[in-house]
Amino acid sequence: MASEMASEMFSKENPIFASFMVCAGALALKMAVPVFLTIYYRTTRKAFANEEDVKMADPEGKKELEIKTDEDVERARRIHLNDLENVVPFLVLGFFYITTNPPACCSTTLFRVFTGARFLHTIVYWFGIRQPSRGLCFLTNFGINIYMAVKIIMYYM
Amino acid sequence: MASEMASEMFSKENPIFASFMVCAGALALKMAVPVFLTIYYRTTRKAFANEEDVKMADPEGKKELEIKTDEDVERARRIHLNDLENVVPFLVLGFFYITTNPPACCSTTLFRVFTGARFLHTIVYWFGIRQPSRGLCFLTNFGINIYMAVKIIMYYM
Amino acid sequence: MASEMASEMFSKENPIFASFMVCAGALALKMAVPVFLTIYYRTTRKAFANEEDVKMADPEGKKELEIKTDEDVERARRIHLNDLENVVPFLVLGFFYITTNPPACCSTTLFRVFTGARFLHTIVYWFGIRQPSRGLCFLTNFGINIYMAVKIIMYYM
Repeated sequence: MASEMASEMFSKENPIFASFMVCAGALALKMAVPVFLTIYYRTTRKAFANEEDVKMADPEGKKELEIKTDEDVERARRIHLNDLENVVPFLVLGFFYITTNPPACCSTTLFRVFTGARFLHTIVYWFGIRQPSRGLCFLTNFGINIYMAVKIIMYYM
Repeated sequence: MASEMASEMFSKENPIFASFMVCAGALALKMAVPVFLTIYYRTTRKAFANEEDVKMADPEGKKELEIKTDEDVERARRIHLNDLENVVPFLVLGFFYITTNPPACCSTTLFRVFTGARFLHTIVYWFGIRQPSRGLCFLTNFGINIYMAVKIIMYYM
Repeated sequence: MASEMASEMFSKENPIFASFMVCAGALALKMAVPVFLTIYYRTTRKAFANEEDVKMADPEGKKELEIKTDEDVERARRIHLNDLENVVPFLVLGFFYITTNPPACCSTTLFRVFTGARFLHTIVYWFGIRQPSRGLCFLTNFGINIYMAVKIIMYYM
């Protein structure tokens, strides 16, 4: 039976896995948001990081564009980097966590809370809403990752 | 039969999985390229980010080296960061995507196009080839990740 | 039998997988260390990256805080980024590597050496211990990732 469980673990029949997959897909789409913001603000503010990008925006060198940074571009990039630091580990740890046969209700809630907190994090970060709102979103995500890592170690040790 | 499928999903018998594994390995090796470039240019240009690295290059403090940045080092680092933003999500999403039983021909093509576009992206980025060549490589990678995320959500929801 | 193997591959019964899971959990917890260091030094040194963080530390604008960088914060962030560049690929590649049915003793040793070298890397990096100690830790991690990528390609090609 354990073997049967394992073979169906990574399929639609496992509601925990299905719930995780939906959250993972939603988080991947959310990670596209800072990418769009970066591209949009790099283009409109003419804040490019590479010579060849400057040349495309100003092929004849008339506008005297230079490589520069822009606060909104940097903010979008910080959101993106924060996603790399939290969402990508979640995608991996969540998947590993599923192999520990966690209780269904508890783990699907965990995945949804993480996903909700991450969407909120991006909104709060982008609009610079007063702290500690961003801190709380971050701590929710961070805490869930830590929790899953501890559970994985306890189960497999 | 569904169960039988699942048990062989992550093995050599599944041509989609085998194709994905080869692409994943190739992409991991490609990610080593900006690492080598960074190390090479940090050493030859004496552009170090840490005091202890400066000390190794100049143990007696005679050359008066200082922490500094170098444009080629920064370019190599931007390539590396871009890989983290695109290749790592692909490795995770591609694996999840395989569990949705996608059509074989379509998905192996998807994996190969992603891999090819990423190799091109590094070449184009490193040599600063005129835009929009880098933009097109990036959009190919980005689009494939978005496509897989949408497919995963649609299958598991 | 191949099918039976596969169905039990991602379970406690597979000692290679169990060993990998413990290492993965430990590495995820280790990745929390630079996060705590960043938060601690950002707060004590008042080195914030966002306007809203400055406002929380100085709600009435009396202390005339400004957005600034701090060398210890930057060092903690470089540790974190280095983890994203090496640990996250390891978590993915190690998992893929397990599907190639590697010899048990060899692969558990590989996982443990990677984990040990990464813990050392953080200690050595944080305290700025003289080079090439950090370089050697890094090369160990980097080499193991390259080795696994090559093995994955050879097995599935």
